Amino acid sequence: MTLEDIQRALLESYEKVGGINHFDGSNLPSQESVNRLASDFMHLLFPGFFELRPLAKRDVPEVTAARLKDVAARLTLEVERALRFAQDPDPNGRAAPAAMALLGKLPELRAIVHTDVTAAYRGDPAARNIDEIILAYPCVLAISLQRIAHELYLLKIPLIPRMLTEYAHERTGIDLHPGARFGTHFFIDHGTGVVIGETARIGDRVKIYQGVTLGAKSFDLDSEGNPVKGVKRHPDIEDDVTIYAHATILGGETRIGALSVIGANVSLLESIPPGSIAYNKGEHLVVRSRRKREELIEQLTADQVKAGDWVI
Amino acid sequence: MTLEDIQRALLESYEKVGGINHFDGSNLPSQESVNRLASDFMHLLFPGFFELRPLAKRDVPEVTAARLKDVAARLTLEVERALRFAQDPDPNGRAAPAAMALLGKLPELRAIVHTDVTAAYRGDPAARNIDEIILAYPCVLAISLQRIAHELYLLKIPLIPRMLTEYAHERTGIDLHPGARFGTHFFIDHGTGVVIGETARIGDRVKIYQGVTLGAKSFDLDSEGNPVKGVKRHPDIEDDVTIYAHATILGGETRIGALSVIGANVSLLESIPPGSIAYNKGEHLVVRSRRKREELIEQLTADQVKAGDWVI
Amino acid sequence: MTLEDIQRALLESYEKVGGINHFDGSNLPSQESVNRLASDFMHLLFPGFFELRPLAKRDVPEVTAARLKDVAARLTLEVERALRFAQDPDPNGRAAPAAMALLGKLPELRAIVHTDVTAAYRGDPAARNIDEIILAYPCVLAISLQRIAHELYLLKIPLIPRMLTEYAHERTGIDLHPGARFGTHFFIDHGTGVVIGETARIGDRVKIYQGVTLGAKSFDLDSEGNPVKGVKRHPDIEDDVTIYAHATILGGETRIGALSVIGANVSLLESIPPGSIAYNKGEHLVVRSRRKREELIEQLTADQVKAGDWVI
Repeated sequence: MTLEDIQRALLESYEKVGGINHFDGSNLPSQESVNRLASDFMHLLFPGFFELRPLAKRDVPEVTAARLKDVAARLTLEVERALRFAQDPDPNGRAAPAAMALLGKLPELRAIVHTDVTAAYRGDPAARNIDEIILAYPCVLAISLQRIAHELYLLKIPLIPRMLTEYAHERTGIDLHPGARFGTHFFIDHGTGVVIGETARIGDRVKIYQGVTLGAKSFDLDSEGNPVKGVKRHPDIEDDVTIYAHATILGGETRIGALSVIGANVSLLESIPPGSIAYNKGEHLVVRSRRKREELIEQLTADQVKAGDWVI
Repeated sequence: MTLEDIQRALLESYEKVGGINHFDGSNLPSQESVNRLASDFMHLLFPGFFELRPLAKRDVPEVTAARLKDVAARLTLEVERALRFAQDPDPNGRAAPAAMALLGKLPELRAIVHTDVTAAYRGDPAARNIDEIILAYPCVLAISLQRIAHELYLLKIPLIPRMLTEYAHERTGIDLHPGARFGTHFFIDHGTGVVIGETARIGDRVKIYQGVTLGAKSFDLDSEGNPVKGVKRHPDIEDDVTIYAHATILGGETRIGALSVIGANVSLLESIPPGSIAYNKGEHLVVRSRRKREELIEQLTADQVKAGDWVI
Repeated sequence: MTLEDIQRALLESYEKVGGINHFDGSNLPSQESVNRLASDFMHLLFPGFFELRPLAKRDVPEVTAARLKDVAARLTLEVERALRFAQDPDPNGRAAPAAMALLGKLPELRAIVHTDVTAAYRGDPAARNIDEIILAYPCVLAISLQRIAHELYLLKIPLIPRMLTEYAHERTGIDLHPGARFGTHFFIDHGTGVVIGETARIGDRVKIYQGVTLGAKSFDLDSEGNPVKGVKRHPDIEDDVTIYAHATILGGETRIGALSVIGANVSLLESIPPGSIAYNKGEHLVVRSRRKREELIEQLTADQVKAGDWVI
């Protein structure tokens, strides 16, 4: 077989096997451009942390103005591409307002990611200071980009939200769908393997460890055998809940009440009331009321191995 | 200690601690070159999706010819390096035919990855369209590169197959050994933490979630204490099987019968018949016959928490 | 809203939401520079393996001298930045000696990572040769950089140790804290999702699979509600222990005795004596004495499914 034979066969395959080609279409948003935007967003949210040169305060207005202008232009272009691809009737008209709407949210998002960073410092004894968290904790990238992607998701921009969170997934192993809704002070420790689905809702001061899944139980198929989209499939987690490593919580009607604690490796497919603690003990999943936190931890230490896991 | 002292000590260590040096040998394939080839393969499989500029249909023949020629040259070089390293008697003679054999498989592989992409669209309610899957679903990179690496594995090319799948592992958290055999319509959702071993065989329309291991139970050591290579150590998964998050299936003689469903967190070390469902219920691992899918899901919802996990 | 409005709001947010800005301060170590140092360390530890051109033995002294000089300069600069950031009284005076102290450890570290690579070859039947392990096994990057980061951790250099291990975490999914202490011949297979905490101590010839957590049970809060830092919170693993996939071992007083085997998915919150085997069997966690390895494996195969998982 010569290279010409191969080329001919490949071109035939391009004719025959459609759907995974993209010819003569508009330009798709490229992962490279989206990755660069992701990096820009991190610079705008945490100014001075990721610069190659020190950022003097007197230069901040100028640097910020230049960066915003540049990001606005590139973001508008990528949004327009995504809209054009989705056969939006007015990609040109919709792209710039959408980009501006997102950028206009940045001050508000900064206040929220500030609470996330604080939660990380309070939640991890190994953290030496806030700066170490911003520089080296993967959850900061994952939740910051999810919060940005979520705004684009609400603006109904196709493709780009998922590409942004997938960039974070690739770098951190944390897979947060752009559709999920997060409260303030959200902290994921370590994070590898965390999966949070599209229709999950998470309250304030929620803390999650590596390998936790907030997933779906099942989904319906339409008459053509394709899954029905847009149904509430993932759980609600109320305020002040802690979920330890590798726990799995499933279902769109499952609701974890405020102030609850879910032990490591626990599987939950139904709601539990506020102030509960759930852990594996032999053949039973135990769900009971929490007492004072101190009592609680004592209790668990006594039950020890049989009580299941208790990762903090 | 001066820099000269350190240099002297390091050079002494290079003399003394061998096996992790590579001097005066042939050039090894470099991860950078292999990564670039990986990216090229994705362009050839999904033309127009990862380009920086739109690809007009009339330019496809020319662009494809140029890319093929370039890839053929670089692939031949890396294969030759790998063969030379492995002290193949005829690296120069074997490299070009092997590279051509792989490239000649691309049309066939395109037809198969097309089934994978379709399976992803059908398997995930959050997927908006096929393009989002190609652009932002990590399983596409992982399975596409595994299918390419598997061809090189069959051609007995050393090093490069594993370097290709390790590139995908690094980017996706999905660790598919080049030796594993996959049928059509293979879908991994989320994917972080999936491990599929060298001698696993997977049928058509198999669906796997994050954290699933298809691994080995044990292995034998030879008289020098090194593991015996090449034994069948990983399970067979028949057609139309679904394996939920964090399930672990082990052993070279373990066979999961067609149309079976394995619940989340289940551990299986022995075969189960076609049409089975396996899930944890208290102290028992329950394995029983599946009924109609609708009944099945109802049943699981009734058993709920005790029934174990049921992630879709 | 115009771009000027957004800029004004963002600048106001920079005034108002502090702690996540870094203005007028010294330059922080940048992740890019730390990543480049990480790559340099791999070149120095495994000379000839990651070069773009073959490395002739006669060129090694010259190449090594040039690389060492370059790394010493850049490492000193980043260490100085980290010290200055941490308000060290003498960053300029301390940086160069710290950098030299680390580089002076390289010969010793090479001897140790050589044992790690050997352990990987002995521990994985799929490994074809030592070179494949160095080129394509993620554990090599993770443990090599942890050993480097640990030296900087012992030298009390801020930020950089964690940035080095986070680089490895990002690339491999293996999260080894710089504070953890590892013996020789350490092997992690696959590795995605492994988490080993700051105060863990690991003996010689320890083998760990994907998803294993060596974590903390709980931590104390000080009077301001921040976690108390520096307490021993993570377990000790003695020599010759094997820990299978997704096992979780927690607590600073938990000690896994030498020659023990921990089955997949097992959760342990208390110590077990040397020579133990721990596995899940129905509602019980079984911990008993190991007999001869051969007997042991036979036993497990008989117990099979109920015995829990036995991944090698």
